[in-house]
Amino acid sequence: MPGNRPLLSNAAAPLTHEVDILDERGRVSTIHIPAERPLTVYVDKRELVTLMTLGGAPEALTLGYLRNQRLVKSLEEIESVQVDWAVEAVAVKTRNGIANVEERTAKRVVTTGCGQGSVFGGLMDEVDSIALDPDARLRQSTLYRIVDTIRTQQSIYKQAGSVHGCALFSADGDLIHFVEDVGRHNAVDAIAGKMWLDGMGGADKVFYTTGRLTSEMVIKGAQMGIPFLLSRSGTTQMGHMVAERVGMSLLARCSGKHFLLLTGKERMVFEPALLEDARRLA
Amino acid sequence: MPGNRPLLSNAAAPLTHEVDILDERGRVSTIHIPAERPLTVYVDKRELVTLMTLGGAPEALTLGYLRNQRLVKSLEEIESVQVDWAVEAVAVKTRNGIANVEERTAKRVVTTGCGQGSVFGGLMDEVDSIALDPDARLRQSTLYRIVDTIRTQQSIYKQAGSVHGCALFSADGDLIHFVEDVGRHNAVDAIAGKMWLDGMGGADKVFYTTGRLTSEMVIKGAQMGIPFLLSRSGTTQMGHMVAERVGMSLLARCSGKHFLLLTGKERMVFEPALLEDARRLA
Repeated sequence: MPGNRPLLSNAAAPLTHEVDILDERGRVSTIHIPAERPLTVYVDKRELVTLMTLGGAPEALTLGYLRNQRLVKSLEEIESVQVDWAVEAVAVKTRNGIANVEERTAKRVVTTGCGQGSVFGGLMDEVDSIALDPDARLRQSTLYRIVDTIRTQQSIYKQAGSVHGCALFSADGDLIHFVEDVGRHNAVDAIAGKMWLDGMGGADKVFYTTGRLTSEMVIKGAQMGIPFLLSRSGTTQMGHMVAERVGMSLLARCSGKHFLLLTGKERMVFEPALLEDARRLA
Repeated sequence: MPGNRPLLSNAAAPLTHEVDILDERGRVSTIHIPAERPLTVYVDKRELVTLMTLGGAPEALTLGYLRNQRLVKSLEEIESVQVDWAVEAVAVKTRNGIANVEERTAKRVVTTGCGQGSVFGGLMDEVDSIALDPDARLRQSTLYRIVDTIRTQQSIYKQAGSVHGCALFSADGDLIHFVEDVGRHNAVDAIAGKMWLDGMGGADKVFYTTGRLTSEMVIKGAQMGIPFLLSRSGTTQMGHMVAERVGMSLLARCSGKHFLLLTGKERMVFEPALLEDARRLA
């Protein structure tokens, strides 16, 4: 645990909402849909950004957003994070302010990511300074355990759909954090915030997302120092390119016993019995 | 066609890329993944934003982005749109410049949308000024025709996955435009750009997206004046709320003969024979 843990609110908000629908049979029924609400981030009373979020982990989301945007380098810089849904805002108080925040938030990249679509400048510049642990390994059986853990996880997605889930796992496949949000970039930021609060590094972790492995997701995973990025979905050319540059192992289309290992292939530990099963089932 | 059509480049870029993968059987194969590339938008030599895009319709994307961000009110204001992939940039030349672009691009909302995640301020303020045609109607048979047209459409998605598709249909269900991008917000902006170039209004159109019906998608559809927004995916509480405020008909989970009519229910024309079929199949 870091020494000066910031003072955090614990603002809960309803995560689903009931609406009446008419279906193809002309039948009325009630379904659940996920919440989506604005959260305007104020840093030392200065308005920074408005995030559209499910609202499940607003304090961790705010911390992770500031971390992944490289606006705050260490948790010690932050004195408090206070969410007030009544005004749809979160007030962040820093100990010493953020140096030239104006210019650092000026450049705008609108990414392909769901959710936190806007990345302030220079992320790609950082990529070349990142090198993930070449000795990290992921066993085929651990991958299967992770996919099965996600499959059986209680979730807003199962209840209401239309959210993305992100999860942090240990190298042995133990679930550490699971966060859902209307945008997968909020979910990854919230996990980054939780890792910060836990004083936890990424080198011995595995990251899972239900969303696509676009460039921004790969960059965020790399910034968090995580060598393995898994998705039930696919990837893009730039996500693939960035993963190769930072030495990240990308695994797409992870479902049941199926996966596509795209980059960092040397890190995957195939297991003879499981290879045998897969070949027999094929 | 508007009188002063801007001079447009016609910059093509490869939309897919081949990569080698290892699967669960330890087998090497080659798959296609969609391109993802930065496109930095310069307006009158001033850098505005960098969009991450598939690259299939960069000129229309740029026009639609400027339109949907409310930075340009009419196509006549634009003299030329020149994309140069060699420098990953598009140069937009306006006839009279954009008034106080600095302040109009200062406020930032990071939305839940895939793709164009950043909306410059004040979109929600506009919502209350929008009222969509209450007399527009969509027949159940037309909805099914639209869903079937999308199902059979040639697409990057079928070849490489990991892209969103958006389509514009006539009130009779004729396909007018189909655009895919790594982010659905790019796809909707590209269609807004194409509608501008065609001098086409939205009142008698139907909009389809493969992506979720989040607040930003609903706001964009409303800005384009389109009374019907369809998705194979779901919606969020704020998407639902905005649709009710602007009087838009939202249809989610459109697949085969199934759909969920969420808002603007009076606009849907159920057809006895189709209701009968649906009840018999249920």
